[in-house]
Amino acid sequence: MANEYTQRLAALLGAVKEKRPLVHHITNYVTVNDCANIALALGASPVMADDIGEAAEMTGAAQALVLNIGTLNARTVEAMLASGRRANEKGIPIVLDPVGAGATALRNRTAEKLLEQLKISVVRGNLSEIKFLRGLGGETRGVDAADQDGLPARVALARELAQMLHSVVTITGPTDVASDGEKVLRVDNGCALLSGVTGTGCMSTTLVAGLCGAAQPEDTLLCAAGGVALMGLAGELSLEREDGRELGHFHMGIIDAIGRMDEKTLLERVKIDEA
Amino acid sequence: MANEYTQRLAALLGAVKEKRPLVHHITNYVTVNDCANIALALGASPVMADDIGEAAEMTGAAQALVLNIGTLNARTVEAMLASGRRANEKGIPIVLDPVGAGATALRNRTAEKLLEQLKISVVRGNLSEIKFLRGLGGETRGVDAADQDGLPARVALARELAQMLHSVVTITGPTDVASDGEKVLRVDNGCALLSGVTGTGCMSTTLVAGLCGAAQPEDTLLCAAGGVALMGLAGELSLEREDGRELGHFHMGIIDAIGRMDEKTLLERVKIDEA
Amino acid sequence: MANEYTQRLAALLGAVKEKRPLVHHITNYVTVNDCANIALALGASPVMADDIGEAAEMTGAAQALVLNIGTLNARTVEAMLASGRRANEKGIPIVLDPVGAGATALRNRTAEKLLEQLKISVVRGNLSEIKFLRGLGGETRGVDAADQDGLPARVALARELAQMLHSVVTITGPTDVASDGEKVLRVDNGCALLSGVTGTGCMSTTLVAGLCGAAQPEDTLLCAAGGVALMGLAGELSLEREDGRELGHFHMGIIDAIGRMDEKTLLERVKIDEA
Repeated sequence: MANEYTQRLAALLGAVKEKRPLVHHITNYVTVNDCANIALALGASPVMADDIGEAAEMTGAAQALVLNIGTLNARTVEAMLASGRRANEKGIPIVLDPVGAGATALRNRTAEKLLEQLKISVVRGNLSEIKFLRGLGGETRGVDAADQDGLPARVALARELAQMLHSVVTITGPTDVASDGEKVLRVDNGCALLSGVTGTGCMSTTLVAGLCGAAQPEDTLLCAAGGVALMGLAGELSLEREDGRELGHFHMGIIDAIGRMDEKTLLERVKIDEA
Repeated sequence: MANEYTQRLAALLGAVKEKRPLVHHITNYVTVNDCANIALALGASPVMADDIGEAAEMTGAAQALVLNIGTLNARTVEAMLASGRRANEKGIPIVLDPVGAGATALRNRTAEKLLEQLKISVVRGNLSEIKFLRGLGGETRGVDAADQDGLPARVALARELAQMLHSVVTITGPTDVASDGEKVLRVDNGCALLSGVTGTGCMSTTLVAGLCGAAQPEDTLLCAAGGVALMGLAGELSLEREDGRELGHFHMGIIDAIGRMDEKTLLERVKIDEA
Repeated sequence: MANEYTQRLAALLGAVKEKRPLVHHITNYVTVNDCANIALALGASPVMADDIGEAAEMTGAAQALVLNIGTLNARTVEAMLASGRRANEKGIPIVLDPVGAGATALRNRTAEKLLEQLKISVVRGNLSEIKFLRGLGGETRGVDAADQDGLPARVALARELAQMLHSVVTITGPTDVASDGEKVLRVDNGCALLSGVTGTGCMSTTLVAGLCGAAQPEDTLLCAAGGVALMGLAGELSLEREDGRELGHFHMGIIDAIGRMDEKTLLERVKIDEA
């Protein structure tokens, strides 16, 4: 269903392959190998460096920064802040994956600190993580409303948090939504098996960052929707393979699918539209 | 060979899929991705958090705790102790994987400390690790006896250490044995190729913890045997696939096999019986 | 193209499978699982331990040590130095992978410190990393010359750095070169897709260390060329499989290929010769 959005996404994918943006990750050790491989498969170049003694300097060479708090610790949180400040000074996009926000006080304080001290371009999380971040604002109505998990509630939640944070907010789920505070895009790609493999969320975040690293700031909303759309489509394509329903093969097929993603497949299969 | 044990194990597998227990891991960074994926494939929900600032709090939300000392460091050992105390307060099972116990003084002291300060539900290790832990008791006879590696010696070793620790002890090897200090179960699943892939021991530990997280305390011995039986059977099933003898494909096929494990296959193929 | 070098390499591969050398890694958390699996596939035995409280002791039990600075931090750099000193005392080979040398001051200082304080048997890096290390010597001519990236320039660079460091130096690229400061070997195995998977460089380093761990010191140059030749050939063999052009399957096929590498394939396909 080629439309304005998928056509622009196809152009962005081409830009990634041409520019090979360096995406600096400070991320968890559970899914870091998959994040590096999905970045390469997209056409970007991944680098991971989390020591306070070099993190900001590495960010200085990058075109995008991923901050993922999946296995945060006292040492890496400081590196995230230092790298984030450098990214802001340099004007490169930061994509935040607030893994497990809401689960512990440390994650909550860290997410809050990152959002307060840094200008984040995109926040990508699942519903409970994004609800938690919305609650940080002190109003719980939007969060409660979203408890229904219906699409209208999620559209409202993404838009509200985006306005609150002055960032693009993406909520992944059966239908993904992304908002810059005004416009809201919906993504109807994906399959249930994606939740059977660890790291599909983290990999989505890397894809968003890879796209952002080759795009202009005005394309941020499209990158935020496009990264999760590519992950959803990769899941669909992997599932269609002979061994696609087997979790180990399905996992590997996701990397395969991003690696061979072409304009034709993207235009035919990516489903992004206004919500 | 369906018997009382395999029938109860099939029921436990069903309970995991229904309850989706959260299994908190403080584990090594070598095999952590496989542990997360095998937990998901079993039907459990994995989480990894190792900072002292949140580890115990995360354990407070979990149904089981894995402590794996494969790449321990000063920081994570403290988190293991804090999480372990919380698990004991809350009454959820702890499964200890004493990776490399016997190899360095730090591993030895750490294993000793964890066993002294915490009530551990299951210890799962290979023969040399379990022999080392048995030696901690100050008597070396049992350890020497087990040097023959014969099944009777390993049965005696598991029983003795279980009595000493008041825990269930599982020794993995060509025939796995598990004992609660009285009863001893043997498991005759597995294949030699499992030792050609890193992390098959760690994944077994995760499977034991996943089962424990959905079971009653009186089922602990069965969980301890059942987790290693499922891993052994997954190896057999992976080996039977077309590419099963190839190490990379075999590795992935293990995840596949746990993901599609059903009651029929389990009842037909799992071999657990009294030793 | 069996020749003196490939015949000796085949003998070394047999020695690894017979001796199963323990290869201690202090390495990055991005590709560590692949390094462990490729070591097992080769026939070696991997162990990872990076806490200062045990790292040197673990090295004391090993036959080779890998130092890889891919995700170095203040804590692990100290462990690298302590392990390296123990390796030197014990007379076992150290293989250094200076990942990202040149990218940050911390990496540069660390690489310099490791090279100054330790006797390194083999340094394996890509062209930009090796150029950076050559520059540490204070002369930039060789580096500039190598900017052309032609084979003669890389041969000269490897020989010069090897003389400067009194180590064997391997530069990986379209044609790999390895030199002990006098002789230079070239390796013409490999395929472009190897750069589409993270960790193929790290895995090459592990293969070099695995070979060194079963070899005599006078075979170091051959091990340095042989490890990268085996990785290159594994890439070729993986690419020839049905799904070989798919990045996820290609990745797994590399492990497959090392696992089933036999003397016949090695003698027919490995291309090592004097440069």
